[in-house]
Amino acid sequence: MTAAITARMASTPEMLACFDDEALVGVALAFERALGAALTKQKVISAAAAAAIAQACDGFDAAGLGDAVAHAGTLAIPLVARLRAAVPPEHAAAVHLGATSQDVADTALVLQSGQAMRLVVRELEAIGDALAGLARRHAATPAIGRTLLQPAELVTFGMRAASWMLGIDAARARLGHEGHAALQVQLGGAVGSLAALGAAGPRVRAGVAERLGLRDAPAWHSRRDAIAGLGAALGIAIGATGKLARDISLLMQREIAEVAEPAIAGRGGSSAMPHKRNPTGCQVALSAAIRAPGLVATLLAGMPQELERGLGGWQAEGPVIGELFALAHGAMHAMRVVTEGLEVDVDAIGAHVAAAPDRDRDAAVAAAVRFVHEALVTHDAAVARRDP
Amino acid sequence: MTAAITARMASTPEMLACFDDEALVGVALAFERALGAALTKQKVISAAAAAAIAQACDGFDAAGLGDAVAHAGTLAIPLVARLRAAVPPEHAAAVHLGATSQDVADTALVLQSGQAMRLVVRELEAIGDALAGLARRHAATPAIGRTLLQPAELVTFGMRAASWMLGIDAARARLGHEGHAALQVQLGGAVGSLAALGAAGPRVRAGVAERLGLRDAPAWHSRRDAIAGLGAALGIAIGATGKLARDISLLMQREIAEVAEPAIAGRGGSSAMPHKRNPTGCQVALSAAIRAPGLVATLLAGMPQELERGLGGWQAEGPVIGELFALAHGAMHAMRVVTEGLEVDVDAIGAHVAAAPDRDRDAAVAAAVRFVHEALVTHDAAVARRDP
Amino acid sequence: MTAAITARMASTPEMLACFDDEALVGVALAFERALGAALTKQKVISAAAAAAIAQACDGFDAAGLGDAVAHAGTLAIPLVARLRAAVPPEHAAAVHLGATSQDVADTALVLQSGQAMRLVVRELEAIGDALAGLARRHAATPAIGRTLLQPAELVTFGMRAASWMLGIDAARARLGHEGHAALQVQLGGAVGSLAALGAAGPRVRAGVAERLGLRDAPAWHSRRDAIAGLGAALGIAIGATGKLARDISLLMQREIAEVAEPAIAGRGGSSAMPHKRNPTGCQVALSAAIRAPGLVATLLAGMPQELERGLGGWQAEGPVIGELFALAHGAMHAMRVVTEGLEVDVDAIGAHVAAAPDRDRDAAVAAAVRFVHEALVTHDAAVARRDP
Amino acid sequence: MTAAITARMASTPEMLACFDDEALVGVALAFERALGAALTKQKVISAAAAAAIAQACDGFDAAGLGDAVAHAGTLAIPLVARLRAAVPPEHAAAVHLGATSQDVADTALVLQSGQAMRLVVRELEAIGDALAGLARRHAATPAIGRTLLQPAELVTFGMRAASWMLGIDAARARLGHEGHAALQVQLGGAVGSLAALGAAGPRVRAGVAERLGLRDAPAWHSRRDAIAGLGAALGIAIGATGKLARDISLLMQREIAEVAEPAIAGRGGSSAMPHKRNPTGCQVALSAAIRAPGLVATLLAGMPQELERGLGGWQAEGPVIGELFALAHGAMHAMRVVTEGLEVDVDAIGAHVAAAPDRDRDAAVAAAVRFVHEALVTHDAAVARRDP
Repeated sequence: MTAAITARMASTPEMLACFDDEALVGVALAFERALGAALTKQKVISAAAAAAIAQACDGFDAAGLGDAVAHAGTLAIPLVARLRAAVPPEHAAAVHLGATSQDVADTALVLQSGQAMRLVVRELEAIGDALAGLARRHAATPAIGRTLLQPAELVTFGMRAASWMLGIDAARARLGHEGHAALQVQLGGAVGSLAALGAAGPRVRAGVAERLGLRDAPAWHSRRDAIAGLGAALGIAIGATGKLARDISLLMQREIAEVAEPAIAGRGGSSAMPHKRNPTGCQVALSAAIRAPGLVATLLAGMPQELERGLGGWQAEGPVIGELFALAHGAMHAMRVVTEGLEVDVDAIGAHVAAAPDRDRDAAVAAAVRFVHEALVTHDAAVARRDP
Repeated sequence: MTAAITARMASTPEMLACFDDEALVGVALAFERALGAALTKQKVISAAAAAAIAQACDGFDAAGLGDAVAHAGTLAIPLVARLRAAVPPEHAAAVHLGATSQDVADTALVLQSGQAMRLVVRELEAIGDALAGLARRHAATPAIGRTLLQPAELVTFGMRAASWMLGIDAARARLGHEGHAALQVQLGGAVGSLAALGAAGPRVRAGVAERLGLRDAPAWHSRRDAIAGLGAALGIAIGATGKLARDISLLMQREIAEVAEPAIAGRGGSSAMPHKRNPTGCQVALSAAIRAPGLVATLLAGMPQELERGLGGWQAEGPVIGELFALAHGAMHAMRVVTEGLEVDVDAIGAHVAAAPDRDRDAAVAAAVRFVHEALVTHDAAVARRDP
Repeated sequence: MTAAITARMASTPEMLACFDDEALVGVALAFERALGAALTKQKVISAAAAAAIAQACDGFDAAGLGDAVAHAGTLAIPLVARLRAAVPPEHAAAVHLGATSQDVADTALVLQSGQAMRLVVRELEAIGDALAGLARRHAATPAIGRTLLQPAELVTFGMRAASWMLGIDAARARLGHEGHAALQVQLGGAVGSLAALGAAGPRVRAGVAERLGLRDAPAWHSRRDAIAGLGAALGIAIGATGKLARDISLLMQREIAEVAEPAIAGRGGSSAMPHKRNPTGCQVALSAAIRAPGLVATLLAGMPQELERGLGGWQAEGPVIGELFALAHGAMHAMRVVTEGLEVDVDAIGAHVAAAPDRDRDAAVAAAVRFVHEALVTHDAAVARRDP
Repeated sequence: MTAAITARMASTPEMLACFDDEALVGVALAFERALGAALTKQKVISAAAAAAIAQACDGFDAAGLGDAVAHAGTLAIPLVARLRAAVPPEHAAAVHLGATSQDVADTALVLQSGQAMRLVVRELEAIGDALAGLARRHAATPAIGRTLLQPAELVTFGMRAASWMLGIDAARARLGHEGHAALQVQLGGAVGSLAALGAAGPRVRAGVAERLGLRDAPAWHSRRDAIAGLGAALGIAIGATGKLARDISLLMQREIAEVAEPAIAGRGGSSAMPHKRNPTGCQVALSAAIRAPGLVATLLAGMPQELERGLGGWQAEGPVIGELFALAHGAMHAMRVVTEGLEVDVDAIGAHVAAAPDRDRDAAVAAAVRFVHEALVTHDAAVARRDP
């Protein structure tokens, strides 16, 4: 009952696995387990209760959970019911203590996003590095610039690559910022105040955050700016990847043929014209760039949520964030392959330059080299700031 | 590797099955089989070839197809390759003859949409009929109108239901129109002209259309208005369903409590406050109404596709149409349950009326009854036009 | 205090005039005048009252109205106050009798849309006719088809034009449908039932509709499907125009140079490279095609409006519909100029064909000619159905 | 020929003035003047030339510019032509030297955005401070929490205000970040490399930036992430404002009546029911929140722009950024008035609490007070970081 083939055409198995049922149940259980541990640490529940919760999480059986979730309208209710049934009766009340369904859903989404973010950042950095290589290599290779799809003054091929690189680097930096803001624990209980846990509430929350590797923060169940910010950063990163794809696909037109995607056996073909070579990687990225803006708009549209817990708004976010990550990784992985293996036809580039009217070529190249240099300084600084 | 739980919270198993892998492969094979039959009828291939194609479709093994599709970037290439390998060598060239990948993808999408449309229309008609019942029953039940979320002049509860009904009926009518326009065969070959089939081309196309129950039409591979129109009609239908959900959720606030969703065991609960009764059906519909607009925008954004076959634009459409149908059916099924079982608290409605300042109640009720009557005339005419 | 320069770059003076302050006040007064006349006809107010209203409309002074509207949050309140002050005191109550602010706003929007529709339809028909001319003239002119931005099999230039034409014709037809649905009077009074007018209500409404050349319909103040449908049809028409612009701009690349926009003195230039020739008309249309989808999404997002009159949803619609019309007319007018004056370089087209690998040229041309013929039959039928 | 009345209903005169024709021409001239000065400083042009440019800017006559811009398709061409005609012939070549049309357009947009940002930030900070006041005042005022539009556990009114405040503060912080990124000079010349200025290029660019109070940066004419980021930050700020408006409008329903917008004579009325009190400020903000997401999506959709200067993508951005600022300021100004004058009915709040089932009120209040305290610490830190 799943549309895996369709999903695979736009994304990667690795990323789809971050948001599949197994991953979802896994992070939801991680939340319940971390909550149990933090509650014990703060002496709200006994160590035996926490151990029982951990054991129930280990042995969790997800069979039939989908139907139960669909019926209940929320993941937490059947999941918590199963956990409570799996612990000794005296520990049942300790399961999920102080939490509510949205705490599970939001923290699960954030944990999945954290995993997904690593994949996306890895690809963005690889693309940036590949483009930096092209920028260095072709810093002084004159090429015809094209504005409004018409030949214009000279650039160099390296300057073009450097400009793509700056776009990718800026997208990666924004994603770092917004990821930091968004990867925060959600634990607020029924109305966000953690009232059921008394004065221990904030310490329990901090403990859950620490165990899950998330930022601690007051309940954000009714304030969705961080999710919207994460989505916007993903949308912008997809847009920057789409820009790269647009340009490569244009430069790959047979009448221009200045670059080509690397040839990959069995990819880029046509069922009607088997020997045609298509910009298949660019297609994946351009398709993602068409789909992302509407998804980002959805996250913004859902922000004015009702009072202490909205009706429809936050429920719309999970699948949309998952879709944005899926499109992002599909697009970026495709363009990483394209940029790392990009075939640059220096002769074709040179022929177009030669055919152009006389210009002050030296001044143009020198200016482009300055651009490349300035851009690479920025890139190298960003590389130096990366996590080891 | 699939996010079935998430999908189930927003849609129905029935609809998700229309767009799952099995359905996709099924309609793609239906296309190839119908093409084979039409080619034989027009004496382009032999009857033996068509029989071999049909047999290969019957015995098609989809194992591992997902990986192959992801690698090839299109469903048709590996699917056709498997079919060709499954027929006797002398019939291999007859498989998929004259067609191209997008022909398979577009016709498959349209066939899936046809199935999905039936489900959606069934729910819309059921909602409309349930609302017509409420309009009749409560035509003269005075109720406080509310404008800008403030009490206003009197309406009747039946007038409110009649207005919801007109919105649902209009959405259903638009979907009928746009469905008729969109459910058209795609068969154009490499560049849309069917050149490979010579003068028989248009007759083969008509034959495929007839066998698949689709409208015949010249190739629309580079003109996507009909897909965009279908998506817009789905978006509007989701919006009309969301309007209904918005109002019922507002009227269901405990301080107003004029209506309630039918109680369903195990649904509408809260993991923190187990005895709370939530507008769960409305939530599903409102969530869909938040997600649909961005998806419709995506279809419009993809329209300016490049020349004889676009790069990214049409590849974006399939998953988006599938998502719109999924959201539509999830929302409509939820609201069908809500409207068919809606609990109307006539006493609460009356108490609010009584508390309002003196007005000319008789005139207000008479006017509302006129509205109901006019609306039901329209509804009954629409019912009479329905397929038996 | 207005951004006229910016607006002019994306639209036309003619269309901007349909939605400017003068037009807005004009249609609002037309509503009040028609209401007065219809009320007299149904003997709800005296002939003297209607005459006084008409006279007040004639002499209406709009000075300072903008500030008053901004303060009141609605056009109708200050406008009606001024009219009431302008009639003899005994007729003050007859002004706007039975109507509410949204009646004025919605009917005004619909009247402006009616004017705007005429402009848009005129351009779409002219583009369609120009493309039909190109299709006829170049029906058998072989040209390289391009799929995924790579050269593919042969089409003819006329087939390409015919496909553009079918897209424009379909957009025009949809706009006809949706325009018919949307150009309906709004008159419902405080809560939509026309209670203040008693049994005469529906007849007054019909009278207003007739006087204003609108379709009569029950109050749709809380059901916005027709507005959303109109917006979607405009969005699709802009998308079809954008498709045309995308293709012409690609074919106009100097390395391809199969077509060119007509040269227009002082247009298409560059401030840095004065002799460059740019696809300026295509740019206007492509820019519109980027902006339209988000505007259509806005109309859909506003649909779930609260109860008998929404809070924010319908107020969002007016400017968005105006913007869609502005973009539509700007794009279509630009592309009408482009298509009517399109320079087709048959030699360049032929050279690309000659450079392509050997193919069965005759079969390809014959198939393309069939496509053109089929398309022109449809176009000619649409032309025959046009209003004289 | 302008729709000022419509614009005024959604925005403020102050903000509309930031983007009107006068402001646009003003910032474009500021760019040309700063360019002249920077060119002189770097000895690219003579001091006499710079003085002539400055004088021509002072005496610039904008009459008829709109028509010329519409014809040329760009502001810079006619503006530069007029400046060149206004300086002595020997200085004509010094005008706009090294720059291109998009340099003017982008820097103008950024300068307008800088002005607009100040207005928006001022309102956001005022809203945040007003909410901080409410949070302090009502930190321990018990109130019924409402989840999924149903009464839930207790919060305090101050906790609700504190949560709104955190949303507004986060939006303001993000706007600060993105504003810093976006307020960068654009100066790249024909293809972005500043080739026409030789080695002095980067220093001229830095000089222009300094004179205009902008960040210096390499040409971003084909990388639009910063504009998209600014738009997204505005969209999120509008969403946070919309959240506040949603909640206040819900709490203001007569059946709940826990708060009320301040009464303002002549505002919030109804033309059919003159004595009704409507949430007019909330309406403006909710309307903006419906319109913003589609505009943000537009900016993202335009990102994959073609090569060294896109065709349609960047031309779409200016009006959209202007619209986002207009909606932002309209919404925020309205909600500033609402929050600064918010009428909180403590008795009504208390009555709803009293009617609720017995709970551990003290624990609930204590927990809510902790939330308020934590939030105010964050707010006070943000206040301390503000510019004096």
